[in-house]
Amino acid sequence: MTDLNTLGEIGLIDRIKQATPIPTQPDTIRGIGDDAAVFDWGDQYGLLATDLLIEGVHFDLTYVPLKHLGYKAITFGVSDIAAMNGLPVQVTVGVALSSRFPVEAVDELYDGIRAACAAYNVDLVGGDTTSSRSGLVLSVSVLGKVPKDKITYRNTAQPNDVLCVTGDLGAAYLGLQLLEREKQVFLADPNMQPTLSEERAYLVQRQLRPDARTDIVHELRDLGVQPSAMIDVSDGLASELLHLCRASGTGAVIFDENIPIDDQAYLAADEFNISPITAALNGGEDYELLFTVRPQEYEKLAQNARITAIGYLTADPSQVVLATKAGQQTPIRAQGWQ
Amino acid sequence: MTDLNTLGEIGLIDRIKQATPIPTQPDTIRGIGDDAAVFDWGDQYGLLATDLLIEGVHFDLTYVPLKHLGYKAITFGVSDIAAMNGLPVQVTVGVALSSRFPVEAVDELYDGIRAACAAYNVDLVGGDTTSSRSGLVLSVSVLGKVPKDKITYRNTAQPNDVLCVTGDLGAAYLGLQLLEREKQVFLADPNMQPTLSEERAYLVQRQLRPDARTDIVHELRDLGVQPSAMIDVSDGLASELLHLCRASGTGAVIFDENIPIDDQAYLAADEFNISPITAALNGGEDYELLFTVRPQEYEKLAQNARITAIGYLTADPSQVVLATKAGQQTPIRAQGWQ
Repeated sequence: MTDLNTLGEIGLIDRIKQATPIPTQPDTIRGIGDDAAVFDWGDQYGLLATDLLIEGVHFDLTYVPLKHLGYKAITFGVSDIAAMNGLPVQVTVGVALSSRFPVEAVDELYDGIRAACAAYNVDLVGGDTTSSRSGLVLSVSVLGKVPKDKITYRNTAQPNDVLCVTGDLGAAYLGLQLLEREKQVFLADPNMQPTLSEERAYLVQRQLRPDARTDIVHELRDLGVQPSAMIDVSDGLASELLHLCRASGTGAVIFDENIPIDDQAYLAADEFNISPITAALNGGEDYELLFTVRPQEYEKLAQNARITAIGYLTADPSQVVLATKAGQQTPIRAQGWQ
Repeated sequence: MTDLNTLGEIGLIDRIKQATPIPTQPDTIRGIGDDAAVFDWGDQYGLLATDLLIEGVHFDLTYVPLKHLGYKAITFGVSDIAAMNGLPVQVTVGVALSSRFPVEAVDELYDGIRAACAAYNVDLVGGDTTSSRSGLVLSVSVLGKVPKDKITYRNTAQPNDVLCVTGDLGAAYLGLQLLEREKQVFLADPNMQPTLSEERAYLVQRQLRPDARTDIVHELRDLGVQPSAMIDVSDGLASELLHLCRASGTGAVIFDENIPIDDQAYLAADEFNISPITAALNGGEDYELLFTVRPQEYEKLAQNARITAIGYLTADPSQVVLATKAGQQTPIRAQGWQ
């Protein structure tokens, strides 16, 4: 018997993928291995992404309000659709919960789900409700669409492409550290009131109620920019960059001083004695987009405040490195998914 | 605070449905409330069904082999597509599992998933693998298609329509009783070998490795029969008949002597001192199809050994009754979903 931990998540997915037959349905364009499956629906490509959220693994109801959890679950799936350069259309949600939840808790959860559906302009079209013997489980499946000439995979980047990332990174992870600290304070003395300051509001919001970057999908179309490859940053920049490079057969150099990090994240990282770069590389849950563009395309994006160039791709797949201001290069290793 | 048990599953789904806005995407044809959501994909309708399977609620790994569980999970979702008179095309599977499972167990689970995908001719195109703190969780999303003139909802039956059911009912529930009995014997004395006889093989197979009735979807098309309404029998005949009547605004009369029950189920019911009719009405997990046809359509099906007429629909929605040979009528109540 082989311990599951020896494989890791990538190893497990590879193993499942390798044993899965090549799709035979004529409208299946792409199966396992990207952020979403891709189908030929005539005038456009269809997309389907499925995610599972498990209590105690993905969320802690001690500090996650159910309304935020509902919103975040939809964000989770919509972000996968955005990573294919697509827009979400419909969503189904499966919920398993024990009878410790009152009806009002279910209402709260669905309030968040519906708020996200309204924000992303998707229809909630079905799902499943069932009982659970222990924790809360959510499954989210999102259907999306993308014009055929806009579809963006993770395996089509080329050497010399410019690596871009949206928004900022690491804030969600630092928000989690703040919430975990408050939880410990609360557990030690349940009469203590939380002391989360206004100055940390952005970090907590990034952790509890993140938004998927469908705005960027619209913006890239408006700017007439077609990314050469794209992936969403759900498990941390390091892990996603390695996925993209591995799939595309490229290496990469990213510059630490270019990684976009919010001021609040810098301050909190200092407080927790964590390197802000480490938080950005391995923290996860940012739901930003990491994409590449051909060098000649980049100038269309250079003035965009929501998009930052952090490096470029190289021809040697064995070299995925972080370059420091001082000129040092260190290999990037994924930690988020282990 | 309101206890979730006071609502029941139907009440909960109604509550969620009522609070959900009417779909606004132009290609959403039908949202929450049927076996699958329905989309306009140009030349055909698209279908999406999502189901969750939770360890300790839907399955007991003491006697459910993982390969069978994988197969059954796909059957679960494919049956929803068949209930819309559609055929499955692609499937995604989310798996959450703890590290108590070795790699070989994951292989076994996926062997069953792939066997079912081959049997139903669907592509496994993606999903999610994640860790779980306690039990095994599976989520299955199935995409299907149906020609626009073949789509079959549950709310379009009319009085005088003939009620038909495929295969036989109650066997999966009695198979579960057999497995539960063996489990108790095993728990009392782990050295005892299981004593499941060959004569009960059909019941155990119906519980552990049920098939969705895509064959019937093909057959109805071959026969040129368009059902007036359809639903799959996952929670027991009583519950599904009530769903269909409630959605269509009709009543129904079914005849106990007409309910198709396998000989092995009769024998096992006797052994367990359960009424075989009760097993068929409330047992669940049969994955057969319950459908209605206009009276003039029924003769095309009358000679079909896989389809049984069990009654007819009436105009009074308050009267959904079981009629006995002796002429007695008793109201049908759902127990499967409570």
